[in-house]
Amino acid sequence: MSKISVLCLSAALLGSALHVEAKEGMFTPEQLPSIAGDLKKTGLAIPANSINDLTAFPMGAIVSLGGCSASFVSDKGLAVTNHHCARGSVQYNSTPENNYLKDGFLAKKIGEELPAAPGTRMFVTVDFADVTDKVTGTIDSAIQGRERYDLIEANRKALIAECESEAGFRCSVPSFFQGLEYKLIKQMEIRDVRIAYAPADSIGKYGGDIDNWMWPRHTGDFSFYRAYVGKDGKPADFSEDNVPYKPEHFLKVSAAGLKDGDFVMAAGYPGSTNRYARLSQVEYTFDWLYPTYLTLVDEWIDTIENASEEGSDARIKYEALLAGLNNFHKNTLGQLSGAKRVGLVPRRAQREEQLSAWLEKNDKQALKTALAELDAVSVEQMQMNKQNFWYNNLSRAQLLSSAQTLYRNAIEREKPDAKRESGYQERDQIRLKESVERIERRFEPSVDMAVWHKMISMYLQQPEENRVAAFDKAVGITSDTSSEELKSLLSAFYANTTLTDTETRLKLLSASREDFEKSEDPFIQLAVALFDTEMAIEDKRKALSGQAAALRPQYMQAIIEWQKSMGSLAYPDANSTLRVTYGNVMGGSPKDGLIYEPFTRLEGITEKDTGETPFDSPKKQLTLINEKQYGPYKLDAINSVPVNFLTDLDSTGGNSGSATLNANAELIGLLFDGTFESVNSDWDFDPKTTRTIHVDSRYMLWVMEYVDGANNLIEEMTIVK
Amino acid sequence: MSKISVLCLSAALLGSALHVEAKEGMFTPEQLPSIAGDLKKTGLAIPANSINDLTAFPMGAIVSLGGCSASFVSDKGLAVTNHHCARGSVQYNSTPENNYLKDGFLAKKIGEELPAAPGTRMFVTVDFADVTDKVTGTIDSAIQGRERYDLIEANRKALIAECESEAGFRCSVPSFFQGLEYKLIKQMEIRDVRIAYAPADSIGKYGGDIDNWMWPRHTGDFSFYRAYVGKDGKPADFSEDNVPYKPEHFLKVSAAGLKDGDFVMAAGYPGSTNRYARLSQVEYTFDWLYPTYLTLVDEWIDTIENASEEGSDARIKYEALLAGLNNFHKNTLGQLSGAKRVGLVPRRAQREEQLSAWLEKNDKQALKTALAELDAVSVEQMQMNKQNFWYNNLSRAQLLSSAQTLYRNAIEREKPDAKRESGYQERDQIRLKESVERIERRFEPSVDMAVWHKMISMYLQQPEENRVAAFDKAVGITSDTSSEELKSLLSAFYANTTLTDTETRLKLLSASREDFEKSEDPFIQLAVALFDTEMAIEDKRKALSGQAAALRPQYMQAIIEWQKSMGSLAYPDANSTLRVTYGNVMGGSPKDGLIYEPFTRLEGITEKDTGETPFDSPKKQLTLINEKQYGPYKLDAINSVPVNFLTDLDSTGGNSGSATLNANAELIGLLFDGTFESVNSDWDFDPKTTRTIHVDSRYMLWVMEYVDGANNLIEEMTIVK
Repeated sequence: MSKISVLCLSAALLGSALHVEAKEGMFTPEQLPSIAGDLKKTGLAIPANSINDLTAFPMGAIVSLGGCSASFVSDKGLAVTNHHCARGSVQYNSTPENNYLKDGFLAKKIGEELPAAPGTRMFVTVDFADVTDKVTGTIDSAIQGRERYDLIEANRKALIAECESEAGFRCSVPSFFQGLEYKLIKQMEIRDVRIAYAPADSIGKYGGDIDNWMWPRHTGDFSFYRAYVGKDGKPADFSEDNVPYKPEHFLKVSAAGLKDGDFVMAAGYPGSTNRYARLSQVEYTFDWLYPTYLTLVDEWIDTIENASEEGSDARIKYEALLAGLNNFHKNTLGQLSGAKRVGLVPRRAQREEQLSAWLEKNDKQALKTALAELDAVSVEQMQMNKQNFWYNNLSRAQLLSSAQTLYRNAIEREKPDAKRESGYQERDQIRLKESVERIERRFEPSVDMAVWHKMISMYLQQPEENRVAAFDKAVGITSDTSSEELKSLLSAFYANTTLTDTETRLKLLSASREDFEKSEDPFIQLAVALFDTEMAIEDKRKALSGQAAALRPQYMQAIIEWQKSMGSLAYPDANSTLRVTYGNVMGGSPKDGLIYEPFTRLEGITEKDTGETPFDSPKKQLTLINEKQYGPYKLDAINSVPVNFLTDLDSTGGNSGSATLNANAELIGLLFDGTFESVNSDWDFDPKTTRTIHVDSRYMLWVMEYVDGANNLIEEMTIVK
Repeated sequence: MSKISVLCLSAALLGSALHVEAKEGMFTPEQLPSIAGDLKKTGLAIPANSINDLTAFPMGAIVSLGGCSASFVSDKGLAVTNHHCARGSVQYNSTPENNYLKDGFLAKKIGEELPAAPGTRMFVTVDFADVTDKVTGTIDSAIQGRERYDLIEANRKALIAECESEAGFRCSVPSFFQGLEYKLIKQMEIRDVRIAYAPADSIGKYGGDIDNWMWPRHTGDFSFYRAYVGKDGKPADFSEDNVPYKPEHFLKVSAAGLKDGDFVMAAGYPGSTNRYARLSQVEYTFDWLYPTYLTLVDEWIDTIENASEEGSDARIKYEALLAGLNNFHKNTLGQLSGAKRVGLVPRRAQREEQLSAWLEKNDKQALKTALAELDAVSVEQMQMNKQNFWYNNLSRAQLLSSAQTLYRNAIEREKPDAKRESGYQERDQIRLKESVERIERRFEPSVDMAVWHKMISMYLQQPEENRVAAFDKAVGITSDTSSEELKSLLSAFYANTTLTDTETRLKLLSASREDFEKSEDPFIQLAVALFDTEMAIEDKRKALSGQAAALRPQYMQAIIEWQKSMGSLAYPDANSTLRVTYGNVMGGSPKDGLIYEPFTRLEGITEKDTGETPFDSPKKQLTLINEKQYGPYKLDAINSVPVNFLTDLDSTGGNSGSATLNANAELIGLLFDGTFESVNSDWDFDPKTTRTIHVDSRYMLWVMEYVDGANNLIEEMTIVK
């Protein structure tokens, strides 16, 4: 497999130097030379073609944490990411005696770091190639539906298996432009990751959930990991003998004068966007799916809260889930209000009309037909999702979902590895084990039962055709089952199950299909009873997905050509691969009468501080601020040390921890959030309101030097003054 | 009694042309010549001594609605005020068929107006005189305590009685500078007030409680009353024969270019401030009283909500009270956070130290002694308030408070009018009757009982010394009374009372003391049983008040002299008399990273609109905005019609409806709110964050011309273009 030099389809299609409107766009690095002109115009000082190689400087310094982004900042494996990305590891090491969440943690010397939480990985991209030909090129266009789906999956699995034959690497074959392109990405999987430095929650999580998605912001959302490898330089499990990883590339850290209007870019791994969703999908999502989820999540939160007293052990086990649900709730409300504000539905309708008109005018009959077919498939998919929505949510009860996962694993394990469903292959067994173990810390039978009771109650209110007979029969319920009767039925499940025991669950990872089928555990019996239904649903889903797989690439082809005709470069939706977004430091006006300044100041911390979580800045920090001890980190334009700043960059979940770079590709901060008015940008980028929030490297260095005394790390890094 | 030419004490003391820091200050019109220099410097274009006569132009156009302010804008009695000040009258006239709250109301011709709600009055100041000599000048300084209190009250009542001997006038003798000065104010009391025009709630109450105290704001908070009098030009009850009142003065309305930084002043009747409260009172209020009220109000709201289902008739009766309680709650939270933000307690401590040092340095031994004595009296007053707090709140149950008021009225009516307690004199009987009637629409026995139960439960948790034995004995409770026992005791009160009947209550207004004392109504029996306790509390309160009355003027004397020594003009705390505040159109930065623009735009309405109350602008208005139909009302600097604007003016409750005037004393808007960051300014004016919110006259005229077609009113007014 060759390095990134393979010319990719989209770049080939589009030629170079296209005009780009506004700063929308999560570009693949390989696309950057095509927009070199705009990059330069916006302020990039180094050549655009120096940032398109994923394995060279500076992109080679950008790594994934799987869900978050990070970047190397020294040749000793030191990597900086968001505090909220590393916080789980801090929590994992915290005890009442050594409360690192409260006090922060600093390894004063290399070797004194703490191990990150189990499962923490750092992925360094070492190879990247276009494999579209190998994934879909060999499939005859006549092959449709389930068969097409299975062939694509088999081809992806084969590529991954070949790539991962070398130990210590993790490979993936993500689709770009909805299956128009596939890339094989090979990443070194560093397994010995350690915490080098994390400020206290009262800096790193300052503002907490209250300030989440909010501006003005004053969060020191940064932490440092250090990557370790075996003495041979290869990934290894944690060992005292391991040595710091020596990355091929690392970023310099700028302490110099970033100011309003300056060029910035961020490189990271955004998770998922829906910029090319068809109108029908948008309507389905905003008119039905999101409002329905809000109802569900409202009930879910209430149920957990009512079933677990505040401060109780039970409640503590559900805090993480509750935080996630509340986060989802706030985000969804933001999406709905954002969609209304930007007029998402009429805008999408207009876009679709314009695309149709262009296809018509340019006589693209085949594409028009494909589009009509795709919309028809979408209707079927949405119909199916609606029908199964409440049934699917029944497995929010963890014991049912565990039983189903374990039984499915036994069934898949009867097959040769290459034929197994993704998620149940040999390469997935460690993660399966971790997820089966993890339940222990996040589960309380009485709460789980209350959630299941609520989910079933809502399910029972649905019309017969949206219910699953096998489920109703196995649990023994009908539309007339009363809440009390249901409670007594479910109590029997929880009284008689052994799945609450972690050892039992772990043993079941290697149990046989027969073991399950003769089990007397009520949840396992239910999982067995539901299996055929589940398979039928999965079969239908895959068949529709296969149908769509033949059509979506044509839709994206049409989009790319249409946008090119208008001088724009289409970029693929986010898919957890490395992307670059660029623009400028920029405040905004989120609403009439209100202006966001581009920078916040140290004094804003004092202003917000109440002395109580989450506004409980360390006394030492407050004193330093009162004394205006800015050191060399002051920004004259704001007469203080900048804490956080806003840009017009295009980002989404997964971008957390992304290196924010200046015109010279030096690190000048970390991307960590978007404003509330931006959450809808996953569907429609509104240049007026979309703003991304970063922590300023000057605040990071100020905290390190003055508050936490992390001078050893400052000395290790290359600081540009 | 002569007109305003009586030279007032404060002006005499202070001389003229003093320097004023920032725009703090609610000045009496008579003070304005003393600050003519700063008025001119700030931008006033007309002579300062043209605005100091309460009965000449422009101040003669400013009227009080009792709790709100208004101003005449035509020679036919047309007066403009806030929508929220006139809304009760709109509600009073609304029926399901003619829902003026929803649709707005416009009288197309004079004579087609609707009568305002019963009790609506318009007060036009006709005379104003210093009467300090007559109130306190005759009282020997040796007379202290209760005796001093009674003498002051007797003197005030005598002055009022003499003044009101002419029919159609209402007089008052407010104290200024805490009793250092008293003024006799004579106001014509116009009793036939009618609604000429009120926009729909979807304009006049746009943003509702959500936007209350918030910026950015888009509320069309304006309405028009018309004052009617008898054919003889004198105040009269409503009659078809009445004619529009011809005011001596009215304001021109400006449609011209008010812009950022321009001079503005507002004239109105601010209710109450505590700018000169002593440190001990500040600490008592912010450390104990407000937090305790928050607890009380939280419970009160919960109790009402739990006792009345949403949407039920019972709930509807309590909506106004709930709105008031929620408003109080939000305001109190704002006060507490504001006090923290500005450092109210340390600032006040510092001020007190500085004052003491100045007194020391200037050898003002008598004043120092007076201050020490005043602080000692304050401690006693606060101690008494704390002790009686929970007992006093027992009369939050309306039937107990009604019984107490009615019984007190019978007792007072045995005395000659001049000797009666204020509030129970002949001049008060109409209001007493109105308040006794009003209960009908705001009362539900089951809710009242739930509130009483809650109040008694909280009272029972207090230590014995904070309870009242007479109450415990009469109700039959002890510390050990259970919630259930209490419920059964209270049920008997509600089962056996006849006070729920309005006719019964009205009859009791003329019942004798003996009628009450032999009554079998349990609430009346309780009122009778508590009477001696109430009188003892009142006696102690008045005695302390009389003690303070001898000391407070000396404190204010010290403040005035001290401020004068620093070149500042002290102004009296707000007391519902006419005041002028001036400054400039000015945005602000309420917190680090955030900027308030000085004006909001029509487009901000479209941006906020959800189609649901309170963000449900009329379709017609939204269309006009989309079409950018600005007419002559556009402000180029914001490229739209200005809706609301911010100033650094000094205002408080009661200022609602105040005319906002430009440098030429033309009406350029109405003051209607302050920002959330400003609510604490009642205690401490913070020039950085205090901002007052106004509706722009251009928006008023735009709505009138384009949305509501109120051209008849536009033609009636004098518009400056």
